[in-house]
Amino acid sequence: MFYHDKKLQYEVRVEKPNPAFAKLLQQAIGGIEGEIRVCLQYLFQAWGARGPNKYRDMLLDTGTEEISHIEMLSTAVALNLEGATVELKDKIAGENAIVGSILGGMDPRHLLSSGLAAMAVDANGVPFNGSWVVGSGNIAADMYANVMAESTGRVLATRLWQLTDDPGMKDMLAFLIARDSMHQNQWLAVLEDLGGFNANLPIPNTFPENEQVNEFAYTFVSTNIEKPEPPQARWASGPSMMAKVNLNMPMLSH
Amino acid sequence: MFYHDKKLQYEVRVEKPNPAFAKLLQQAIGGIEGEIRVCLQYLFQAWGARGPNKYRDMLLDTGTEEISHIEMLSTAVALNLEGATVELKDKIAGENAIVGSILGGMDPRHLLSSGLAAMAVDANGVPFNGSWVVGSGNIAADMYANVMAESTGRVLATRLWQLTDDPGMKDMLAFLIARDSMHQNQWLAVLEDLGGFNANLPIPNTFPENEQVNEFAYTFVSTNIEKPEPPQARWASGPSMMAKVNLNMPMLSH
Amino acid sequence: MFYHDKKLQYEVRVEKPNPAFAKLLQQAIGGIEGEIRVCLQYLFQAWGARGPNKYRDMLLDTGTEEISHIEMLSTAVALNLEGATVELKDKIAGENAIVGSILGGMDPRHLLSSGLAAMAVDANGVPFNGSWVVGSGNIAADMYANVMAESTGRVLATRLWQLTDDPGMKDMLAFLIARDSMHQNQWLAVLEDLGGFNANLPIPNTFPENEQVNEFAYTFVSTNIEKPEPPQARWASGPSMMAKVNLNMPMLSH
Amino acid sequence: MFYHDKKLQYEVRVEKPNPAFAKLLQQAIGGIEGEIRVCLQYLFQAWGARGPNKYRDMLLDTGTEEISHIEMLSTAVALNLEGATVELKDKIAGENAIVGSILGGMDPRHLLSSGLAAMAVDANGVPFNGSWVVGSGNIAADMYANVMAESTGRVLATRLWQLTDDPGMKDMLAFLIARDSMHQNQWLAVLEDLGGFNANLPIPNTFPENEQVNEFAYTFVSTNIEKPEPPQARWASGPSMMAKVNLNMPMLSH
Amino acid sequence: MFYHDKKLQYEVRVEKPNPAFAKLLQQAIGGIEGEIRVCLQYLFQAWGARGPNKYRDMLLDTGTEEISHIEMLSTAVALNLEGATVELKDKIAGENAIVGSILGGMDPRHLLSSGLAAMAVDANGVPFNGSWVVGSGNIAADMYANVMAESTGRVLATRLWQLTDDPGMKDMLAFLIARDSMHQNQWLAVLEDLGGFNANLPIPNTFPENEQVNEFAYTFVSTNIEKPEPPQARWASGPSMMAKVNLNMPMLSH
Amino acid sequence: MFYHDKKLQYEVRVEKPNPAFAKLLQQAIGGIEGEIRVCLQYLFQAWGARGPNKYRDMLLDTGTEEISHIEMLSTAVALNLEGATVELKDKIAGENAIVGSILGGMDPRHLLSSGLAAMAVDANGVPFNGSWVVGSGNIAADMYANVMAESTGRVLATRLWQLTDDPGMKDMLAFLIARDSMHQNQWLAVLEDLGGFNANLPIPNTFPENEQVNEFAYTFVSTNIEKPEPPQARWASGPSMMAKVNLNMPMLSH
Repeated sequence: MFYHDKKLQYEVRVEKPNPAFAKLLQQAIGGIEGEIRVCLQYLFQAWGARGPNKYRDMLLDTGTEEISHIEMLSTAVALNLEGATVELKDKIAGENAIVGSILGGMDPRHLLSSGLAAMAVDANGVPFNGSWVVGSGNIAADMYANVMAESTGRVLATRLWQLTDDPGMKDMLAFLIARDSMHQNQWLAVLEDLGGFNANLPIPNTFPENEQVNEFAYTFVSTNIEKPEPPQARWASGPSMMAKVNLNMPMLSH
Repeated sequence: MFYHDKKLQYEVRVEKPNPAFAKLLQQAIGGIEGEIRVCLQYLFQAWGARGPNKYRDMLLDTGTEEISHIEMLSTAVALNLEGATVELKDKIAGENAIVGSILGGMDPRHLLSSGLAAMAVDANGVPFNGSWVVGSGNIAADMYANVMAESTGRVLATRLWQLTDDPGMKDMLAFLIARDSMHQNQWLAVLEDLGGFNANLPIPNTFPENEQVNEFAYTFVSTNIEKPEPPQARWASGPSMMAKVNLNMPMLSH
Repeated sequence: MFYHDKKLQYEVRVEKPNPAFAKLLQQAIGGIEGEIRVCLQYLFQAWGARGPNKYRDMLLDTGTEEISHIEMLSTAVALNLEGATVELKDKIAGENAIVGSILGGMDPRHLLSSGLAAMAVDANGVPFNGSWVVGSGNIAADMYANVMAESTGRVLATRLWQLTDDPGMKDMLAFLIARDSMHQNQWLAVLEDLGGFNANLPIPNTFPENEQVNEFAYTFVSTNIEKPEPPQARWASGPSMMAKVNLNMPMLSH
Repeated sequence: MFYHDKKLQYEVRVEKPNPAFAKLLQQAIGGIEGEIRVCLQYLFQAWGARGPNKYRDMLLDTGTEEISHIEMLSTAVALNLEGATVELKDKIAGENAIVGSILGGMDPRHLLSSGLAAMAVDANGVPFNGSWVVGSGNIAADMYANVMAESTGRVLATRLWQLTDDPGMKDMLAFLIARDSMHQNQWLAVLEDLGGFNANLPIPNTFPENEQVNEFAYTFVSTNIEKPEPPQARWASGPSMMAKVNLNMPMLSH
Repeated sequence: MFYHDKKLQYEVRVEKPNPAFAKLLQQAIGGIEGEIRVCLQYLFQAWGARGPNKYRDMLLDTGTEEISHIEMLSTAVALNLEGATVELKDKIAGENAIVGSILGGMDPRHLLSSGLAAMAVDANGVPFNGSWVVGSGNIAADMYANVMAESTGRVLATRLWQLTDDPGMKDMLAFLIARDSMHQNQWLAVLEDLGGFNANLPIPNTFPENEQVNEFAYTFVSTNIEKPEPPQARWASGPSMMAKVNLNMPMLSH
Repeated sequence: MFYHDKKLQYEVRVEKPNPAFAKLLQQAIGGIEGEIRVCLQYLFQAWGARGPNKYRDMLLDTGTEEISHIEMLSTAVALNLEGATVELKDKIAGENAIVGSILGGMDPRHLLSSGLAAMAVDANGVPFNGSWVVGSGNIAADMYANVMAESTGRVLATRLWQLTDDPGMKDMLAFLIARDSMHQNQWLAVLEDLGGFNANLPIPNTFPENEQVNEFAYTFVSTNIEKPEPPQARWASGPSMMAKVNLNMPMLSH
């Protein structure tokens, strides 16, 4: 069961409201790299977990924390939109170019649909989509899905941090960046806890190795019709990441 | 900020797992009448609220409660899918008609994608869509949106209740039906608290009445080319719901 | 069966075309608060109606009227885009900032995809989505869905009215605002006609009251872990909106 | 402006209700080949038309007719669902296989969401999507879009016709098939009216021919690395469909 | 099976990077008129083809070519975004109007999500949608779908050509315009190869003509309640496009 | 540039066509774990790559290979649908339960829309969505996205393998399972090639560590209000995965 209090997890303040930055923040709320996605992803993984309780518990802990991040970002959107109406009403009736420069930089639906509040959409107004909530029932696959979500999430947060000079926004984003670091830590730690990276590979590691068509399982396939030399690369020769088997030479299929 | 414990808000048990019922329950999780929608809708309305704190607080209280409902329903889906794999593996290789009767009744992605767990989709596998999260910044409009959400949600829950004989499922649904009753109560109570139904109408009630084209504001328009008699109906004559003005006779535009 | 003539329901004129305003108008055509949604919602409710003919007839009347509103708004979009090409071709090749200020304010697909005409999308170019067409088969639930649609629609129309100084656009929107008032009237009148608000509650009112878990049906649940005093609010004590039962004190679940 | 009466354009009757056929009919309502799409496509093309009035008028005529087709099909869905509830309630609590065979054949949302009425979705419950409404501002391109819509629509209708033995349904579909024939006629007649097929090609025919990279404009490109003989085919040699220019030999790019 | 080399099909160069033009180019990649759509449409039609191999082979040839067009356009997007970061970081912290004029003209997700690379979305950031991939199993219907796709695609390409002054972009688009001409040629040639336009009509031409309700198959239906004179138009009288039958006078249904 | 020949990458044969299995295979074509997603993801990452050519080249190699996998799976769908029409036409007119058992097991759009061919949709008919194509411009983040895609893809393929007894289908899937193993290898090898897992962490590793709020960067946050003991888990204490810093004790925020 879930509870709340009236605090935010970390302070959110905006010194100079900026409707264009409110639009950018929407990507971190309702975008595929955003907080609604990780929140629901961790919670659904927890609710469907059939393995050891320790993973389920951690997923619940962090899934719940992500709701607090949606809350922080939604608060930040509302603060960045503060006063937007007045400013816009003055300018909208003017010359087209000005209208464009104002409205083009903000999400028009912040004005028209939400009344200057955050929405469950990305920076282009594309709605959050439940298909992004990945939980496969295979814990190693899910941990990689989670590392991926936190990685693209932290990439997004650092880009937002670079795009603002507002000290309040920089501080909030620096906090979220820190949490994304820790969450990357967590999901990778689960992989280690499951026996280390190698032990989990290939995913799913329960599929009997002799059932796959093994001559294709450790072979780099080039589809380049110029038939280049086999690459002297880590992924084309030497030990496989997942077994003692060596990788084969590239196979050219034509 | 948000918290959890390991309890469910209300007991969830399934006596006889039924994968076809798991599919139906998805409508109450990721469908437009479902719990993800009301959860996010109330929370986003709270985070964007600029009015009196009492409404914001209540929205947070109930939005948070709805996460617990998603949790209950997701647990119910997982319990209804318990053991489905074994049963399916036995039958799937058989004759087509049988495959159809088994797989047709369940969501194939419960088997293929989620590993027998709930997903953020509706009963047809259509993903939850963030556009369903309505918050307009106008509190009366939002309360009607919330009454609508709880009404269609309770209609859905009663239909699910009728479609199962499992005592555990009936009990869980009877609880959710009760909460939907209370939530209808709450949103209507806010409308009363705002001055009563009439005082809020038309929504938004801040738009100056003399600015609308009033000759069309209290007139029922029939588009029936058979030009029927003006209906002797509550919506075509007598006092308007929103003002002392009387409704006009139907206007036929051709 | 449906018919048309070549008139518009109300005059649509634009004194000074404004491509940025054309983009905003799209929200009222293909957005969740827009006219395609109410048009299809009322028509589908009519076509599925199994109750008294009088409601079906009214739904057909008003659903048909809404097609005329899509027509007016689509005409308004086309008029606001008049001449956009020439202006844009002159400027697009120029400096980036100018390109941004022009194109940023308009929907680029008005230029690229539709040839300066309206599309079935919202103000961000997100396509109309059939999931927004709500018809539950429960007439009270559907009336609340309709009130909600007209309320958010009128909120949108008033915001559009505030954002333009074009006399033609202000006049057209003032007409649509008036019709949204009347339509709010109509749906509320149906609720009254069905026996008054109380008689319909909770929705669906056919579910046997003793089957719901009644101890939770009239109880406000706070999820605030700070365990505040029970709110002295209309939604936490006093008579329920839907029965003679009194609301209970808040229940804190932890 | 739009009007209606209470008749259907053609009789709709169902002798033996079949919920599984109701699901199939949804494709003709809310699918990409369905009637909502052609209805909105023709109307939006009309509302955006800047050319001769005769085309606009015809688009309005036929767009309006398509609303009547949505109405017929929605009525057919409701009739096919008649009585479904009772039958389902009896069987749903039974053994899984039976549940599957019943529910698998029908759209569960016809039961859960719409109360036995049509919805704005396709045969898999995927919502109608506004992106399917094509209007490019180029009348020849739009006529091909319309021929394509009527062609895939008529293919769908004939498949539905083959899948039912209900005389009422067969009759309704035979009517819709006839209308799809006529509408194919109409859009092709516009192309002829514009000067004949050749005169419109390539689309858009206003782009100055010498501006395209002409060495690639009449040349069939094979991407087959086996370098087959140039095909002796209509599309690889002989006169171009759109000009006096002859088609070139295939060009192999590697 | 598929192969590649490291060349582009045609040179792509950008003299002056323009992030706003990168946004417009996205329509030609991930929009409904774009290259992902035609690529997948032709390939899926080929993979599902049950008719003569010559059509399947051609579909594979051209479907494969379209991958090369996605590649060219994605390269063009990346080149137009070159250097955008630096420029943006300098300006973003400035005054809102400037932020709007910069960010409004570009897709913010090019900055936030993709790191200055193309994405599988349209010019408004709306994701590519698999429903646009049309393959009906009826080859004549599919050819019209393909003509339509190439026609709207060429209309789009010519508009992009008009909106840029960059010589590299103009040259690349002139090449794509030429290929769209040829592809229109190809699909129309298939229709001719199948026996000529008339022989394929109505589509599907395998449905027995006497089974459709023929009195409605050659009759123009006006839905105009003003009952205008029957139009003296190609689509209302004279020989049908698809048979020796003459078109009837317009039927007015009320 | 891209090329093809007429071979498949690996043999595809179906001994006993099974329309229900055709529906399941759609998940591997158009689902979020499917081949269209990985194909476009690797190609878009390649086209946007600004780093060393060796990664770009490999992405092109494997992205191109994935087109061949879509081709194999689409061929498998068509083969599994072979003959479905005849069988269905015989049975569809029969009793509802039988209709349900046949049609419920297959995708009705395989019959209605595609004419027994594969479509760009998942196992529930939900269209492929371009938002799933992830390319962030950060190569480490993208490699985790790719490992995740191949992991969930291989989980899916093994489940499909378990659900069929057809020797041809088992063989094809065993091949695809092998390729998914190799591709997991490749993306992990890139991470190693970039300096090893630790060197890339946290992602993005270019963000200056001292700018994040470091007190939160190595601290496990429990949101459990029952305030459990700090977990003795790999993710709550001991060395961080990404630095020499030790993880902190859990922080409870209330």
